[in-house]
Amino acid sequence: MESRKLAVVQRYLNGTQKEKIRECGEALGFTVDFFDGPEAARGKVADAEIIFTQFREVLKDAPALKWCASSNAGVDPFLVPGVFASDQAVLTNGAGAYGVTISEHIVMVALMLLRRMGEYQEAAARHEWLGGLGIRSIHGSRVTIMGTGDIGRTTAGTLKAMGASRIVGLNHSGRMPEGAAFDEAARSTEAESYLPETDILILCMPDTPETRGILSRQRISLLPEHGIVINVGRGSAVDQDALRQALTEHRIGGAALDVVVPEPLPAEDPLWETENLILTQHISGNMTLGYTADRSVELFCENLRRYAAGEPLHHVVDRTRGY
Amino acid sequence: MESRKLAVVQRYLNGTQKEKIRECGEALGFTVDFFDGPEAARGKVADAEIIFTQFREVLKDAPALKWCASSNAGVDPFLVPGVFASDQAVLTNGAGAYGVTISEHIVMVALMLLRRMGEYQEAAARHEWLGGLGIRSIHGSRVTIMGTGDIGRTTAGTLKAMGASRIVGLNHSGRMPEGAAFDEAARSTEAESYLPETDILILCMPDTPETRGILSRQRISLLPEHGIVINVGRGSAVDQDALRQALTEHRIGGAALDVVVPEPLPAEDPLWETENLILTQHISGNMTLGYTADRSVELFCENLRRYAAGEPLHHVVDRTRGY
Repeated sequence: MESRKLAVVQRYLNGTQKEKIRECGEALGFTVDFFDGPEAARGKVADAEIIFTQFREVLKDAPALKWCASSNAGVDPFLVPGVFASDQAVLTNGAGAYGVTISEHIVMVALMLLRRMGEYQEAAARHEWLGGLGIRSIHGSRVTIMGTGDIGRTTAGTLKAMGASRIVGLNHSGRMPEGAAFDEAARSTEAESYLPETDILILCMPDTPETRGILSRQRISLLPEHGIVINVGRGSAVDQDALRQALTEHRIGGAALDVVVPEPLPAEDPLWETENLILTQHISGNMTLGYTADRSVELFCENLRRYAAGEPLHHVVDRTRGY
Repeated sequence: MESRKLAVVQRYLNGTQKEKIRECGEALGFTVDFFDGPEAARGKVADAEIIFTQFREVLKDAPALKWCASSNAGVDPFLVPGVFASDQAVLTNGAGAYGVTISEHIVMVALMLLRRMGEYQEAAARHEWLGGLGIRSIHGSRVTIMGTGDIGRTTAGTLKAMGASRIVGLNHSGRMPEGAAFDEAARSTEAESYLPETDILILCMPDTPETRGILSRQRISLLPEHGIVINVGRGSAVDQDALRQALTEHRIGGAALDVVVPEPLPAEDPLWETENLILTQHISGNMTLGYTADRSVELFCENLRRYAAGEPLHHVVDRTRGY
């Protein structure tokens, strides 16, 4: 009998992490092949039953695929028609691995905005000993987090430990996620009643029909003058023109966008030069040494054991909802 | 009988905060006068029994002074001979008000260094969609904090909540401060044995004969190649030339200095242009809206009640130790 094939198409795994996947796969009866990227995998995954990957490009070469384990938290690019050669394949995402690195990004940019780090850095670039700007704290701030998955929950935990005074989690159902540090949970459709009392607004939602444009011009106008907006989910959630205008006219305190429309952002886009905006290149979920990649491998191996045992997989993506 | 005088010489108090001091002072039998700065107070504090201030300049005009409540955390400038007109005056510092704002600064710059934010920001300034730099996490990091006062303890608490794997507190006595989140405490003189296993080194010590030059060239050389150094205490603690050399030669991962020698740093100092250095203008302790100033007033009023009742004051500065 021919052995079952597991293909790992990942760029950032170290030796220990590969060894862990190999051991776990072989113990469950799989032959494990490693490829650095979609180019290396081309023509070599036709008989793969499982692919663990960050690259959607590899899936069109895998007609025998039964399970695609994406290591990405957001899998909307995998849901575009034509990506999969196999219609039957189950898709799981990398939820659970990104909470730590993305929440660290959120805390960093929140503090940079609250503490007016941009102005101090500009002065430092001029070798100027600037002092005394009025700054703000996470301590005592009222936070609203749209999206209560791994990222939202991890962020809520850190902000609570730093003394945020009220943390509201908004999501589809309005239900409080178990064991989370939110003081309150509500439906995203009730955002209007929270925004006027929000010092820090954080968006960490997947791209779905429901989340597209959810931070509308009208909702942006409800934020207080000092309110800041941080988006690490998908650029589609924000009315980008309205946000840029609010920043330029100083109607909000600042913003940090790690996700935009389109990506990569063209060099001539006015967003690059918008005042009080920290614009980053979709890097908040970069794997950090010593944690994210380890955790991603751990979660995959756990799911692989479930797959081999015929148990239901964790983090299966509902293709109609998109997450 | 002439009333006892309390002079408040502070630039950043709002109406509510002034009102709180006035109420508290008058209830205890003091006449309370407010001045925005040392210029406004000149010639008007000769009969002040108590001065609550951030400005040492006012003290030479106050021969009747019995208690100077400095709102600064570090009072080394108050200890220079000739500052006080009254030799008998007790000096207290503002310890307890700065832990939150300074620890927020520390977390911010630690993340900026670990996540290579400087490189991403430089790319963004060129409108470049840069990706994929190897970054690090606070989660899983080994932290050494030199100085276990309010700032060190608050920082330890936040870093623990963010998943730091080991936090060592170094201080004069080697004793573990009560209720703090350190995993271990040791004497500062034992730093050598901790530095080779330190991912993040934080200095938050007062300026004393003992702390001057404590981060020596030799100790800097013990840090791992990826280790980062953050100083928010006093510039005198660090061998600045040795640190700059270590950064330039990439022998450590990065540094963030909020305190330097001298301050303000001259425009021609090479430190301004040092690679992998976040240089800020002694701003980590800036009062933040809604917390630091409130807390500072609260701590002063508490001490004022103790003073009026003849009880021992909190945060009395030992002039021989300097804190």
